[in-house]
Amino acid sequence: MEKDFGGFKGILVVGLGLIGGSLALALKKEGYKGKIYGYDLNENRIKKALELNGIDEGFNKLQDIPWKNVDLVVLSTPVKTFVELAKKIKPFLKENTVISDVGSVKGDLVVKLYEILKPHVFVGVHPIAGTEKEGIENAKPDLFKNARLILTPLGEDKEKIEKVERLWKDIGSKTEIMDPHLHDFVFASVSHLPHAIAFALVDSLIVLSKETGIDLFKYPGGGFKDFTRIAASSPTVWKDIFLENKENLLHTLQVFSKSLQKLKEAIEKEDENKILEILSESREKRLSLD
Amino acid sequence: MEKDFGGFKGILVVGLGLIGGSLALALKKEGYKGKIYGYDLNENRIKKALELNGIDEGFNKLQDIPWKNVDLVVLSTPVKTFVELAKKIKPFLKENTVISDVGSVKGDLVVKLYEILKPHVFVGVHPIAGTEKEGIENAKPDLFKNARLILTPLGEDKEKIEKVERLWKDIGSKTEIMDPHLHDFVFASVSHLPHAIAFALVDSLIVLSKETGIDLFKYPGGGFKDFTRIAASSPTVWKDIFLENKENLLHTLQVFSKSLQKLKEAIEKEDENKILEILSESREKRLSLD
Repeated sequence: MEKDFGGFKGILVVGLGLIGGSLALALKKEGYKGKIYGYDLNENRIKKALELNGIDEGFNKLQDIPWKNVDLVVLSTPVKTFVELAKKIKPFLKENTVISDVGSVKGDLVVKLYEILKPHVFVGVHPIAGTEKEGIENAKPDLFKNARLILTPLGEDKEKIEKVERLWKDIGSKTEIMDPHLHDFVFASVSHLPHAIAFALVDSLIVLSKETGIDLFKYPGGGFKDFTRIAASSPTVWKDIFLENKENLLHTLQVFSKSLQKLKEAIEKEDENKILEILSESREKRLSLD
Repeated sequence: MEKDFGGFKGILVVGLGLIGGSLALALKKEGYKGKIYGYDLNENRIKKALELNGIDEGFNKLQDIPWKNVDLVVLSTPVKTFVELAKKIKPFLKENTVISDVGSVKGDLVVKLYEILKPHVFVGVHPIAGTEKEGIENAKPDLFKNARLILTPLGEDKEKIEKVERLWKDIGSKTEIMDPHLHDFVFASVSHLPHAIAFALVDSLIVLSKETGIDLFKYPGGGFKDFTRIAASSPTVWKDIFLENKENLLHTLQVFSKSLQKLKEAIEKEDENKILEILSESREKRLSLD
């Protein structure tokens, strides 16, 4: 089937960061023929997006955007800003414009956005892609190629949901539909929890370095760099994710603390069988991912 | 300077696993002209080592080894076995044979080995290299190339210490001398703690999957695979490391738990500034490693 990117004629990317910028670049690279508009408070990001030929026009005031040409809005700012943004852009939207996002938190947030934006259709989207780098200067047109992407739609407007899905398929994503609350539990576990742990691990090495006067960061190796790569992720983005998915994250943190405590006690008691049992089960599960 | 691999004429690698196997392959590849003997209880590993041309002769009984030709022994089995092994091989050693190892734990263990093996010289070595894979079938001749390597010598026999250092330099390692107890604190922090956390993280996802009936391992992404790669490491090797470096590891686990608790409390209280502070400091430190 020929690519039609969901048939949208004008796409507004709100927030020209890593994900928003990569989406714009991907659309251009894959041959999208409609207009791509960029909105960002930061002039430099707009300049960069224009330079990279990711967007056709850039704006830092909502009222300057040619809204009559926009039939898809993609929120690509930190998730904490979505509710405020949705309220601000709603008066500008023409009939039938679809609103979507690329945020890592769904759940109650997409329910709220759906309600605020009615009668416009909001379609929640979470591309499982990204790097620890931020900003459009690190954007990549192939970021979503062969990457999984979760849609968490609400409501009955199947046609608009499918249009959004087609757009992402046409830039190479492997799409999947999921309940927004299930999404938040799953990603609290496999993504938000690991990020929280990575940040805390680096923090603990800062504490240990201070405590002993030995700069532990002079001794990376043994998996430490891989393990903590995600601790280089954007603090603003992750603060928002942690707060927006707070309940799920706190629950997974609790379960993780129990697992760590279990291992710690086995080491304290020198219970070799228990240690082997924990390590072997974890190893087997981890190997099953490769 | 021409390579002389420390001038050793016959090297016995005890334990033909990933590290021992890679050492043998590296010596051959870099042009070592002496004999390489392999000792392993597992016949298949010996066969594999011979097939790969890593060793010249293989043995599974200590008494069969031509000890008169051996002037360097490298212990490459899990660290827990070292003390027992040192006692067993001591009667076979000819005068001036140097004993070394490739274990990830030093501290009290090397003090013990040093005492047991006297008047022979024991030189502790920890190559900061390895993968989560195990066994000689995963050995790589370039595993130590440009990799850091810590020597933790005791005693005054500078000549023998330098011989061991030269051997590793000649296969491409970047060597460094460290106090054995400092070594154990540093590696508890930057390696053993991250491994313990990775195993516990995978364990917690097993618990969460059971609790909810949702197979969380179907949803890797968002850094999870990188983050937990080290949880695929050998359970036996890591059980031993955890127990041999117990005191340091328990201390670092305690500091990590406090860091995690601090982040958890900031999330609970929705203290945005505190969260940003923790995340920003960690990010800055992590970025400084690249």
